[in-house]
Amino acid sequence: MLDIRIQNGLLELLKQKPLNDITTKDIIESAEASRKTFYTNYKDKRDLLMEIEGAIITDLQEALKEDRKCLTQHSSFPDKEEIFRLSQGSFAHTVQVCSDYREVSRILLSPNGDINLLTRIKRITYSEFMHRGKLLFYFNSQHPSTNVHPSPIPVDYLFEIYTGTLTNIIVHWVRSDNRISTSALREIMGYAQTHSPVELIYLTNFDEQADPNQPSHHFNS
Amino acid sequence: MLDIRIQNGLLELLKQKPLNDITTKDIIESAEASRKTFYTNYKDKRDLLMEIEGAIITDLQEALKEDRKCLTQHSSFPDKEEIFRLSQGSFAHTVQVCSDYREVSRILLSPNGDINLLTRIKRITYSEFMHRGKLLFYFNSQHPSTNVHPSPIPVDYLFEIYTGTLTNIIVHWVRSDNRISTSALREIMGYAQTHSPVELIYLTNFDEQADPNQPSHHFNS
Repeated sequence: MLDIRIQNGLLELLKQKPLNDITTKDIIESAEASRKTFYTNYKDKRDLLMEIEGAIITDLQEALKEDRKCLTQHSSFPDKEEIFRLSQGSFAHTVQVCSDYREVSRILLSPNGDINLLTRIKRITYSEFMHRGKLLFYFNSQHPSTNVHPSPIPVDYLFEIYTGTLTNIIVHWVRSDNRISTSALREIMGYAQTHSPVELIYLTNFDEQADPNQPSHHFNS
Repeated sequence: MLDIRIQNGLLELLKQKPLNDITTKDIIESAEASRKTFYTNYKDKRDLLMEIEGAIITDLQEALKEDRKCLTQHSSFPDKEEIFRLSQGSFAHTVQVCSDYREVSRILLSPNGDINLLTRIKRITYSEFMHRGKLLFYFNSQHPSTNVHPSPIPVDYLFEIYTGTLTNIIVHWVRSDNRISTSALREIMGYAQTHSPVELIYLTNFDEQADPNQPSHHFNS
């Protein structure tokens, strides 16, 4: 069971040093809790970390499943306009969960955090992509369009590009100091699915925005 | 200076356990080298790791800079066909460096490896993106095309999507057991820049390829 004081005790420490340099004693002191409280709830610091990550993963999975429900009404081979429109609803709960866990996941995704959390998140998004792909694109069916470059790309690279891009956007949002709204985030997720990176360059207004010569903070972390 | 025996000694150990669980003594034993050889070249294990990563980073930076040279001859506002074509040359050395360092970076990018290496790689690609963006798209200039969705996306999200996608593809390639050729890799990098993820789905032939229900190995690592 998650004890909020102990959880925050660990998270505060992770702002300063990596998990490997943190002892159970540190966590108990930082949480101002007793040894008994710690050991009643957790076997060790790794057990505590897994409980925190487990809660994020479970809520994320449920949100993705909930959001999937709005993908039952659409045309047979939705075009980019329709995908863009569907995107608004089909990530609503998911983005909300990311917002709820923003502070926690920001710490866990930092260099002091857990390198495996991102892998766990990618595993979920991968599985969700398969579910949605079947609903939206009838994977294994033939699409009527003809293509300029007919040579296909390997399925595993497609997944990497599709789910990797959406995951990157959310992780970037979680890490950013300059937080945009969840609805703006969902809109960007819509663009990223339906526009190529080159098209996105042409959509971007470089004049009115922050100096692109300055990397955003998380590249320096 | 990089001592190849000692470097390989560390890399062999990282296949089995994380850096934090590895001692200098372990490395010396694994390398079948003397303490003297180790301490003549390195201060400690972290110093050794930084030397290995430093070599990768330097070579990657030089390759990107070399590849940038082929971006001087092109039209004012290159369309996707041209970007696709340019992609073949403009990542040639870069992809070769990734190929040369494939085994090493595969270990360093694994869960036992260094969470910061990916951040360092992203920092380089970010800076390269700025250079190339100025050559190719005249950042801060106006493009003549009109857009269906005129609302711009923030510059930092654009960078995340553009360089993040290319980095993901290369990292996926490095981690894959099923290795495709470097020219096939460059072609995928071309597609990923010039086609939206939704378009890529329609380009992919799901029938002729491996079962997409099976996640590729690195999700299970």
